[in-house]
Amino acid sequence: MKQEQETPIAPVAGATLLTAIDFYFDFSSPYGYLASEQIDALAARFGRQVNWHPVLLGAAFKITGAALPVRQPLKSEYFLRDFARSARYQAVPFVQPMNFPLSTQHAARAFLWLHEQDAIAAKGLAHAIFRAYFTAGRDIDNIDTVLDIASALGIPRAPLAEALAAVSLKERLRHEMDRALARGVFGSPFFIVDGEGFWGADRLPQLERWLAEGGF
Amino acid sequence: MKQEQETPIAPVAGATLLTAIDFYFDFSSPYGYLASEQIDALAARFGRQVNWHPVLLGAAFKITGAALPVRQPLKSEYFLRDFARSARYQAVPFVQPMNFPLSTQHAARAFLWLHEQDAIAAKGLAHAIFRAYFTAGRDIDNIDTVLDIASALGIPRAPLAEALAAVSLKERLRHEMDRALARGVFGSPFFIVDGEGFWGADRLPQLERWLAEGGF
Repeated sequence: MKQEQETPIAPVAGATLLTAIDFYFDFSSPYGYLASEQIDALAARFGRQVNWHPVLLGAAFKITGAALPVRQPLKSEYFLRDFARSARYQAVPFVQPMNFPLSTQHAARAFLWLHEQDAIAAKGLAHAIFRAYFTAGRDIDNIDTVLDIASALGIPRAPLAEALAAVSLKERLRHEMDRALARGVFGSPFFIVDGEGFWGADRLPQLERWLAEGGF
Repeated sequence: MKQEQETPIAPVAGATLLTAIDFYFDFSSPYGYLASEQIDALAARFGRQVNWHPVLLGAAFKITGAALPVRQPLKSEYFLRDFARSARYQAVPFVQPMNFPLSTQHAARAFLWLHEQDAIAAKGLAHAIFRAYFTAGRDIDNIDTVLDIASALGIPRAPLAEALAAVSLKERLRHEMDRALARGVFGSPFFIVDGEGFWGADRLPQLERWLAEGGF
């Protein structure tokens, strides 16, 4: 207990000023997965919350003109090595999926649907989807796989299946994507804290210093 | 002195097995510059030498299909912030050049020419060129600027000017580029140590652990 302020009139004033960290990721992104295993604990050390935002990188790639690294000559072999090495470096379990990359709209929509009801449960689902893909190679592009993963967490299957088929949830994801692009998100993982963007799991050390020092 | 081998028949055997680190960079690459200020000291802590290899990223980009980040929508603003922030993070002096990016064939050729005569002096020239560009914004695409920078280091101007105009040095750089591409180099900085490739100044922590543990 080192709090030595003389007059703690508003002892939580500082805490309430700490805005949440926005964490954008694609469920098909290995570096997004690595970040997902670290960001909440890192943020908590500095009293920060993290808002998770699944995005579809394809939409951003259309704007930037980027191609998927694994589809590019020279880069593909490197990236497959770097995914696994970066996971070992961070001590995060990782097995390269055979079906890679894949489309993640069902996974992203399931997250959004659950998030409206229970933000904590939605993070649990996100972890389960990421781990099913990057440790067990499950085909999370398949809507039934997403439903199976959710069911295993006790999430009612029928309402989620119904929501995934509805137009409203598709429009919700499109709206989320538009907002992300408007904020400059072009890759995964992408973090925004106090207006400052950080791209890549390898920017977590800079993000950490930013939180520790209030910018640098 | 913790060496407790009973029969040190070949006490320097381990040391002689340590191969050099290959460090590939483009003189127009901010992250290449940041790495250039760190790699030799890092390597020296593990008894490693570093062989410096200037490359022209344009040739690699033609193969990978990559576009320069600063020419891509969404990414350009981010990268300009990240260059400067990463420099502050590494405590390396940095001023974003106005003329950016630029062509670096004269700088690369000057390095190769000097390297054939004096590898140490060539590293000194590389540092001087990088710093002239990334701390003083000098136009290192200009052949006279390269000659000025070299002259300031005591390198005879006339022989270098003659070499830079000769076909043989141009072919030498082309040959170096072919070798780099054949080894999978597609970006700057790019490191190869014991057959393992590391791309980016942000991979120096992984490279460091690799050196410390002999792979991981």
